[in-house]
Amino acid sequence: MTDTRTGNDTPKAVVLVSGGLDSATVLAMAKERGYAIHAMSFDYGQRHRCELEAARAVAAAAGVVAHKRITLNLDEIGGSALTDTAIAVPEQPGEGIPVTYVPARNTVFLALALGWAEVLGAESIFIGVNAVDYSGYPDCRPEFIEAFNRLSAVATKAGVEGRPIRIETPLIHLSKAEIIREGVRLGVDYGLTVSCYNPDEDCRACGRCDACRLRAAGFEAAGVPDPTRYQTD
Amino acid sequence: MTDTRTGNDTPKAVVLVSGGLDSATVLAMAKERGYAIHAMSFDYGQRHRCELEAARAVAAAAGVVAHKRITLNLDEIGGSALTDTAIAVPEQPGEGIPVTYVPARNTVFLALALGWAEVLGAESIFIGVNAVDYSGYPDCRPEFIEAFNRLSAVATKAGVEGRPIRIETPLIHLSKAEIIREGVRLGVDYGLTVSCYNPDEDCRACGRCDACRLRAAGFEAAGVPDPTRYQTD
Repeated sequence: MTDTRTGNDTPKAVVLVSGGLDSATVLAMAKERGYAIHAMSFDYGQRHRCELEAARAVAAAAGVVAHKRITLNLDEIGGSALTDTAIAVPEQPGEGIPVTYVPARNTVFLALALGWAEVLGAESIFIGVNAVDYSGYPDCRPEFIEAFNRLSAVATKAGVEGRPIRIETPLIHLSKAEIIREGVRLGVDYGLTVSCYNPDEDCRACGRCDACRLRAAGFEAAGVPDPTRYQTD
Repeated sequence: MTDTRTGNDTPKAVVLVSGGLDSATVLAMAKERGYAIHAMSFDYGQRHRCELEAARAVAAAAGVVAHKRITLNLDEIGGSALTDTAIAVPEQPGEGIPVTYVPARNTVFLALALGWAEVLGAESIFIGVNAVDYSGYPDCRPEFIEAFNRLSAVATKAGVEGRPIRIETPLIHLSKAEIIREGVRLGVDYGLTVSCYNPDEDCRACGRCDACRLRAAGFEAAGVPDPTRYQTD
């Protein structure tokens, strides 16, 4: 279908870009599939503003068509160590759903992406959720994505007209090491990305939080040099 | 279940309050069912800021426990006459999904309500969608609400733990006249509410837009005096 606004027929995709390793890889995968990429990032009161700067750098390096940043005061809702400074970020692995879980975060992000995708006439929304090395969050599981796809089919004008916007999760069954190897193959510069929940003012990683541990283990298992800048360097 | 934060066992509900007639009625219905009401409103770049003032007045009149207002720049996403000043609000009935449709609006609102409900430990989220006299929006239909309830069951910690937060839509099968009669029975002051898409600076209704036409016909069919302040008064 020709896009009447741009005059070309390249299919569009919205890609959620957090500034982390996973979403940088998803962005490269969506680009390889030929989509005109519309990156979307969220400023949701997270502690580590380094993420947003990393998201900007990742999107710019990939040459996206557009990059939209949405401000959301999820910190007003509270309930997570990532948005509420009264809750400490853990430095040891724990059981169950961790305190870094932000209630309904991916539901909110995908809902906003769905709105933008509909306005753009985009075919798909790409999100870097992962069910293998995931952090115990309910909204990173395949059953969550399947339920969101069923919602998408009835929630929008596009869905009612038989062209539902699809949620694409190319990382969902990959290990962290497999994700990293795929990104390296696609030329992703992981030095631009930030995963740490507790970066310092210079955006260097703590090396101790859940996110740092998962990331470091991934580079090790992939046999790829870890470009992460650590506070101890 | 006793709430450890408040020390009482009144079940909580989040109620989406827009400032319009429907949500004011839903708020009264949720209160009648015995819920501790946590009202939630959205400042999403809509043209008529009168809605937000009406939402405040409606929540205050109902004596809610809390009223949270979330700011969202949906106007950045665009695509609707309600948020994009480049698209005119129609003054005549049209076919299909109208230009006042805001892409994925109820998906976004319910996603944010889901996050707050989870933090609060609320049982339910009440929303005033209506499939009878509705305005042709895909996200006001029963199949949308059913899909969102299936999503809720897998999207949150509460759902994973077997206590999914339910979306309640007590107006969904009522006509506008039935809604108004129910609200009058419950003592709702509809003079506090604003439905018009094109209110003037004094928040008086235009009497011509889709929302005004639906509202006026509802009061007439209900046989209830219309307390709406019109620009022609």
